[in-house]
Amino acid sequence: MSAPVESLTPAEARQMFRDGLSVPTSGWCTGMTQANLIAVPKQYAYDFLLFAQRNPQSCPVIDVTDPGSPRTSLAPGADLRTDIPGYRIIADGVVVEERSEVTEQWTDDMVAFLIGCSFTFEHALVEAGVPVRHLTAGRNVPMYRTHIASRAADVMHGPIVVSMRAIPASQVATAVQVTSRYPTMHGAPLHIGDPASLGIADLASPDYGDAPLIEDGDVPVFWGCGVTPQAIAVAAGLPFAISHAPGKMMITDVADKFWAA
Amino acid sequence: MSAPVESLTPAEARQMFRDGLSVPTSGWCTGMTQANLIAVPKQYAYDFLLFAQRNPQSCPVIDVTDPGSPRTSLAPGADLRTDIPGYRIIADGVVVEERSEVTEQWTDDMVAFLIGCSFTFEHALVEAGVPVRHLTAGRNVPMYRTHIASRAADVMHGPIVVSMRAIPASQVATAVQVTSRYPTMHGAPLHIGDPASLGIADLASPDYGDAPLIEDGDVPVFWGCGVTPQAIAVAAGLPFAISHAPGKMMITDVADKFWAA
Repeated sequence: MSAPVESLTPAEARQMFRDGLSVPTSGWCTGMTQANLIAVPKQYAYDFLLFAQRNPQSCPVIDVTDPGSPRTSLAPGADLRTDIPGYRIIADGVVVEERSEVTEQWTDDMVAFLIGCSFTFEHALVEAGVPVRHLTAGRNVPMYRTHIASRAADVMHGPIVVSMRAIPASQVATAVQVTSRYPTMHGAPLHIGDPASLGIADLASPDYGDAPLIEDGDVPVFWGCGVTPQAIAVAAGLPFAISHAPGKMMITDVADKFWAA
Repeated sequence: MSAPVESLTPAEARQMFRDGLSVPTSGWCTGMTQANLIAVPKQYAYDFLLFAQRNPQSCPVIDVTDPGSPRTSLAPGADLRTDIPGYRIIADGVVVEERSEVTEQWTDDMVAFLIGCSFTFEHALVEAGVPVRHLTAGRNVPMYRTHIASRAADVMHGPIVVSMRAIPASQVATAVQVTSRYPTMHGAPLHIGDPASLGIADLASPDYGDAPLIEDGDVPVFWGCGVTPQAIAVAAGLPFAISHAPGKMMITDVADKFWAA
C-alpha cells in the first residue's frame, strides 16, 4: 500500500479523526503502536482488569486511565474521547450506537483500558517477508467470535475473539516467530489452520471487519483480538461501556519496536 | 546443593510448611514454580492490580484468588493460609508480626495475588552454566529496597525492591538471555553493575534475605523482586495486608518451563 496514511505522524492522524474521519487504521502511521479501547464505569474496573490478567493473549493491557480522565501516557497530547476514528456505545449488553466522538458519554467515573493490537506487529511481518493481505488491499482485518470461552472474572465472561491472517504455508512458522516477539500485542497465534475447531463455520463471513483475502496455499492463522472486551461487555450485559469500533484504533505515540521482546 | 529438598514434590514441601517448618525455599522442588504472596482487603484489590500492571518487572501477577478464598489455580490442593513457610502481617503500614500460618487473619474479604519469583529461573541459570551463589551455599537471596520509585496507582506507591545475584563478568550476558525467557518471573535484569545508582550503599547489608556471596570478577546483577508489594503496602500505609516472609515462598504445582517464552 502506498497511500500517504502510512507516513502520517500519529498526531496528524489523530487530528484527522478528531475532525471526523472514520476509517480502519490498518497500515496507518507505519511503525507506531495501535491500541484497542474499552472504557467501563469504575465499579467494573477491577473485574475487567482481572479478566485481562486471566486472558493475556486476548487482552494485553498497555495502559489504564485515571477515572474520568481521557488522557493516556501512551500519547500525552491525545484525547481518548475524540481521537479514535470510531466508537461503539454498549448499554445493558447491547451495542446501541456507533459514533465518531464520545465526549458527552465519557462520564466522570469512566476508566479506560488500552489493549495491544495486532496491527502493531503487521509491519514486522512485512519486514520479514510475510504478506499481510488485508494491509496490501487497504481493507480491515477479518475478526471472528469463537466458541472458545475466555477465563471469567466475576461478571466478566464470554467468547474469545480472534483476528485472522491468511499466510502462505511456507511462511506460517516465520509468522509465529515474528509475532512471538510482541507478547503485549497478542503475541504468538492462538490457533493455526482449523477454523472449525474454533467454531468458525465460514471464514468468508467474519463477525467484524472485512471478508478475508485468501490465496491458494494459504493457511488461516488466528491471533487473540482486542475486540474480545466488546464481546465480553455484551455477554456480561454491562450497563454501560465505550469501545473503539473494530479496526478503527487508537494510534499512540509509542513505536512498535518498544514492545519487542 | 545436594540436600533432598531439591527433589521433594511441591505437595510434600507444602505439607512440611503446613506442619510448621519455616525456612527459605531457594533450591526446593527443582523445576517447580515458586511465587510471592500479597493479600489485601477487596477494597484495595483494584489499586494493587493496577499497580502490578504498571510495574510488571517487579509485580508479574500469575494468579488472583476470589475474595476470601485460600485456593489458587496454580496448586489446587494447597491452602494459601498455611502452606507457605512464613508470613508477615502488615497493619497500618507496619510489619507487626511474622507467623507460620495466617488462618485467623485471612478474612472473608482478602484477595490474594501470587506474583512470579526469580527462584523460578535459577534452575535455568544453573542449567546454562551460570553459578547461583546463594543457591549453592543454601542461603537466602539478598534483596534491597532501591531509590527507584515504582509507578504509582492511587494509594499504592513506594520503592522498587530488587534481588541480586553476583555473576561472573563473562556470564552476565548469558544470565540476561536466560532470564529474558521468563517475563512472568521478573524477566531480564532491571539493572547491572552499579549498586550506587540504585541507592544501595552497601551490598553486604541487604534489606531482606542473607548477605551476598561475591567472588573476584563477579558483577552484581539486579532483578525486579516480588517483595516490592510488601514495601508498597508499608509505604502506602495500608490498614491491613498479609505477605509471605521474604525468601519463604509459595511452591506451586506448575513447572518452571510452563512460563518460558
